[in-house]
Amino acid sequence: MKYILDANGLDKGPEVVIAAGKRAVKEGMDITIIGKESIRDQVNMSGCKFMLATEEISTEEKNPAFAIRKYKDSTITKGLYALKNGEFDAFVSGGSTGAVLAGGTLIVGRIPGVKRSALTIPIPNVNGKLSYLLDAGANVECTPDMLYEFAVLASNYVKSAKGIENPSVMLINNGIEEEKGSSLTKEAYQLLKNSNLNFKGNLEGRYIFDGQSDIIVTDGFSGNLILKCLEGEFIFINHLIKKSAMENFFNKIAMLVLKKSFKRNFSVLDSNQYGGVPLLGLKKVVIKAHGSSDECAFYNSILAARDAHESGMIESITNIFAKEA
Amino acid sequence: MKYILDANGLDKGPEVVIAAGKRAVKEGMDITIIGKESIRDQVNMSGCKFMLATEEISTEEKNPAFAIRKYKDSTITKGLYALKNGEFDAFVSGGSTGAVLAGGTLIVGRIPGVKRSALTIPIPNVNGKLSYLLDAGANVECTPDMLYEFAVLASNYVKSAKGIENPSVMLINNGIEEEKGSSLTKEAYQLLKNSNLNFKGNLEGRYIFDGQSDIIVTDGFSGNLILKCLEGEFIFINHLIKKSAMENFFNKIAMLVLKKSFKRNFSVLDSNQYGGVPLLGLKKVVIKAHGSSDECAFYNSILAARDAHESGMIESITNIFAKEA
Repeated sequence: MKYILDANGLDKGPEVVIAAGKRAVKEGMDITIIGKESIRDQVNMSGCKFMLATEEISTEEKNPAFAIRKYKDSTITKGLYALKNGEFDAFVSGGSTGAVLAGGTLIVGRIPGVKRSALTIPIPNVNGKLSYLLDAGANVECTPDMLYEFAVLASNYVKSAKGIENPSVMLINNGIEEEKGSSLTKEAYQLLKNSNLNFKGNLEGRYIFDGQSDIIVTDGFSGNLILKCLEGEFIFINHLIKKSAMENFFNKIAMLVLKKSFKRNFSVLDSNQYGGVPLLGLKKVVIKAHGSSDECAFYNSILAARDAHESGMIESITNIFAKEA
Repeated sequence: MKYILDANGLDKGPEVVIAAGKRAVKEGMDITIIGKESIRDQVNMSGCKFMLATEEISTEEKNPAFAIRKYKDSTITKGLYALKNGEFDAFVSGGSTGAVLAGGTLIVGRIPGVKRSALTIPIPNVNGKLSYLLDAGANVECTPDMLYEFAVLASNYVKSAKGIENPSVMLINNGIEEEKGSSLTKEAYQLLKNSNLNFKGNLEGRYIFDGQSDIIVTDGFSGNLILKCLEGEFIFINHLIKKSAMENFFNKIAMLVLKKSFKRNFSVLDSNQYGGVPLLGLKKVVIKAHGSSDECAFYNSILAARDAHESGMIESITNIFAKEA
């Protein structure tokens, strides 16, 4: 299995990608890093192969689909073409989510029968396990059959790559009753209910950490909103904890005692530690790593690519959509 | 000014309403409590007046509009008719949100020109102040002009009842750029941008605690989702804190030291402490208290009713919509 890693796009620079690639090479993996001339020597020294791409798509890029077409020699465009052409089995990038999504669809292409690809994000739960939420923002406006399709894609991903048999599916809604919600959620509910999926009904935002479901389905606007609000509240609560610690001398000492445990336990809410997430529905494995990834997180993204590829997820999804067609 | 309080609907029972009413009477307020025969004596002893309502609308009621019509002698239906008929100036209820919303619209009625009424929820921020988010769930499906109308209603509420001159307005979206979002948010953006409101652009969920805006506008599905996800994460983080505390003896002691400060600082995330929230756009003051209110929270809801009435908010909104019509 051959991997191609995008050197661009990370907050902490290409050094992170090179360090993670070096670690993967040591583990016997076949790694190529695509990036600018300036990193060639460093990449070669790391034991990874180097591929040159002279252009870069900014993470601030407002029109990612346009950028993919315009910057043909960017790491994302060139890397995804190399993936499509069979030179590699998986592409891992911490670059612009929009560009990776657009490039994945435009260059690699969707599995026949799949209407939209979707981003899946792991959500920790009180049982110490993970639920998988999608769409995390790839498709702002969704139809009921898209939500159904997301559930099919995620069920396969979770079964193949995570080894969960007959994963449960729930639908984000503003109430648990079947008749609740918008026209989108009401219709999607019926599609899911009448499917072969292990559908367990509506899920209110209040319960997303309760581990009631392996898969949590929602439209991309809501998925993005959920993740961003959770991120905002996490920062706000950390602010309140720090404020409490600073109130007096004893609090300061007590916080020093608790600090390590807090950091370790709170880390489940840090999306970084889960490595990258696959763009589901594409013909090849494309993994989106977090822009703020460190070496460990980016290495985990390479492992996510391996799991997705070796699990036979792509073949499994291809077969299912061939049957549904 | 005369208040009517709904004895039903609170998790902790009518005793909470009676205790809060007693406190308000001591402060010189004119309080009537509407409820079942069984509480008549208790209410009379508290110094509040009693009004009999033999029926109750369950908080589990699936069709609130139907229940409002069916249970004519319920506290909500009868109480809202008494409000409408001029016997009272404000109605405060901790009962079914759906029933209070439906009853408010069907019985009390909207101010001429107002298409929909909306629920506003205070959101704490890092500056120690509050932002006001609406719609918190009254209108699941919204049009762009409804979002614009919510912004007008909230601007008036915040100005009149909270004394904030020229309050700022931001729109929940999945990116800050003008061209981002769903067709709903894109169109609402243009309406807000071209209005007389103090519109400051799009707001991502990540920043709702940053105090960038006095008013945060969104559709009722998203507003409900935001609040429920925040509630869920707050509970989850509390679970992680407790888990950390239980890890060893020193952590336990440290947590005992910090407990009080945590409780006090975290209380900003407890919607209870803000008392009730007004249903904006109605001809009279209707306050929805939290179902889990204690005496203090319910008393704060009575004060919220007083502030809303005395601020002249209703007259102000009436004038504005008369001009817009």
